[in-house]
Amino acid sequence: MAPVTNGRVLFNEIPAGYPEPGKTTVYDDSQKIDLERIPLNGGILIKTLFLSIDPYLRGRMRDASIPSYSPAFVLGEPLTNYGVGVVLRSERAAFEPGDHVYGWFPFQQFFVAQDDDPKRPIRKLDDYKMPWSVYTGVCGMPGQTAYYGWKEFANPKPGDVAFVTAGAGPVGSMVIQLAKADGLKVIASAGSEEKVAFIRDIGADVAFNYKTERTVDVLRREGPINVYWDNVGGESLDAALETAATGANFIECGMITGYNGESYHVKNLDKIFAKRLKLFGHLVSPLHPKYQEQFYKEIPPRVARGEFKYTEDIKHGLHLAGHAIEDVQRGKNKGKSVVLVAEE
Amino acid sequence: MAPVTNGRVLFNEIPAGYPEPGKTTVYDDSQKIDLERIPLNGGILIKTLFLSIDPYLRGRMRDASIPSYSPAFVLGEPLTNYGVGVVLRSERAAFEPGDHVYGWFPFQQFFVAQDDDPKRPIRKLDDYKMPWSVYTGVCGMPGQTAYYGWKEFANPKPGDVAFVTAGAGPVGSMVIQLAKADGLKVIASAGSEEKVAFIRDIGADVAFNYKTERTVDVLRREGPINVYWDNVGGESLDAALETAATGANFIECGMITGYNGESYHVKNLDKIFAKRLKLFGHLVSPLHPKYQEQFYKEIPPRVARGEFKYTEDIKHGLHLAGHAIEDVQRGKNKGKSVVLVAEE
Repeated sequence: MAPVTNGRVLFNEIPAGYPEPGKTTVYDDSQKIDLERIPLNGGILIKTLFLSIDPYLRGRMRDASIPSYSPAFVLGEPLTNYGVGVVLRSERAAFEPGDHVYGWFPFQQFFVAQDDDPKRPIRKLDDYKMPWSVYTGVCGMPGQTAYYGWKEFANPKPGDVAFVTAGAGPVGSMVIQLAKADGLKVIASAGSEEKVAFIRDIGADVAFNYKTERTVDVLRREGPINVYWDNVGGESLDAALETAATGANFIECGMITGYNGESYHVKNLDKIFAKRLKLFGHLVSPLHPKYQEQFYKEIPPRVARGEFKYTEDIKHGLHLAGHAIEDVQRGKNKGKSVVLVAEE
Repeated sequence: MAPVTNGRVLFNEIPAGYPEPGKTTVYDDSQKIDLERIPLNGGILIKTLFLSIDPYLRGRMRDASIPSYSPAFVLGEPLTNYGVGVVLRSERAAFEPGDHVYGWFPFQQFFVAQDDDPKRPIRKLDDYKMPWSVYTGVCGMPGQTAYYGWKEFANPKPGDVAFVTAGAGPVGSMVIQLAKADGLKVIASAGSEEKVAFIRDIGADVAFNYKTERTVDVLRREGPINVYWDNVGGESLDAALETAATGANFIECGMITGYNGESYHVKNLDKIFAKRLKLFGHLVSPLHPKYQEQFYKEIPPRVARGEFKYTEDIKHGLHLAGHAIEDVQRGKNKGKSVVLVAEE
């Protein structure tokens, strides 16, 4: 078989504000790959099916000299993130052609996983007859983020009220469902009527569009809140601080309102001591050792049985990855953002 | 004996910015009290010796309709706070004339403690041959604040670095000494050369004047920090967020930079999740049941033996309470602020 095009999405320029497809990232189709002959050197040849597009990717579009929790993208090199693929060839005993795998993928159509990062090993997926894309969402990093964080930090008590921001996203929607399963009253926000309908559908007791109703007004009416799941920071965080109950737990998972150049002045930080709040900075990776096996055992079969609902926003084609990234930063995606790179 | 003047300091007006003596609070000498005849109705007649002046009093100078962790002062009524006094007459079995007591005092020279607040009962003090004023400082609420908070939240590990703001105050200076006792490297800040000399004297490894050197520059050089004791908020909090180590513990004890109308825009809140920080809002009262007896058993004798050092800034005369309050808000006090109401 002749070599085929191996399309890639490269990091091209550090953005000042929102990332721009074609500028921040560029699609490149100049590489070819010979799928039958490329040497594996003990690795696995993977065909990428899905790539996950997540809010935190914005933080990786930085000068590489700035340290942070996740590695900076390398200029001129493909982006990387979690993905799902299918094994084409393998020189590792644990993998066979046809296996579906999840792991840390470059944004390209085909790649050889050799010495993959021991912190993010390629993982063979169980087949619960769901779309494989769910392994980038509720059954992948976002679902793990919700599940680990809720178990580790929420400490819910009977009668508690939870407030969840970005409630229609894969993290927020999972948190809503975990909070409802624990018997809490759940308030959740999102940025469109369609998203609000979804979060109501998955069980939120109070669902509102923060663009048409002020968060602080809703929380004054429906709170005080005992658990705050923060995906957004800014004005929502300020409202949560104002309306928190004494001793409330804040799970600080993300602050997307500040990722693209804006900076909101949070005015209620004094409520942290005045109400004895606990704010827990939450990242998924350090909690893998504690929760990962439990997660894979419990969550995918429950999702397959319909016990947890999700929505996806699928962009068809790797060349649209840059658009998907921008949409997520602007909140334009309608569910978990995924790039479909190839059908099986 | 004829009735004597019972001087009082009354809450007179809610301040917009800094409290002003004579305006926010007024000294009133219109009341008389007959110390021999005033009926006790089962209570204790106390002569006030010392009143504690603390930063948090500013938060009590608010409209009484605004809820907060500590009760609002009542317009036209005496201020209240922790104080030390001597019992003149008693109808309670546990107290005798001549006993020294600590508790929740009105700002007046004499008062009858009847049904005192069960959360803040009048407490008979042990005599370790120290000035009684220390029971408003290192051996009182501020010392408890430091001791309880350090034990509950600091979780120090060998090699850790702590940063303490308002290091010359009664809370900060105690925290510095507790951190040094635990073997940590301690960085501490204060607002004058005299205060810096004191915090160096009590053991801080790095002591600096935040008015002449930028906190963030010192922390970049001397950090990263693993424990942050926040008494001030604002720019110091921002610098601590920037220079915190992954997984650092922040003990949020106060934010005096924001008490008097200014509001600093904290820009590094995203570091909470990026570094998996834990921020613990800390108030002393809820931790009394857990630590109070241990504190009174351990700390006063150690202070008496010179194991913990302290400084005091004593204003002579109840009529100067308003000035002491303003000084504390402006950081002009040189040590724990106490009003000496009467010699024995």
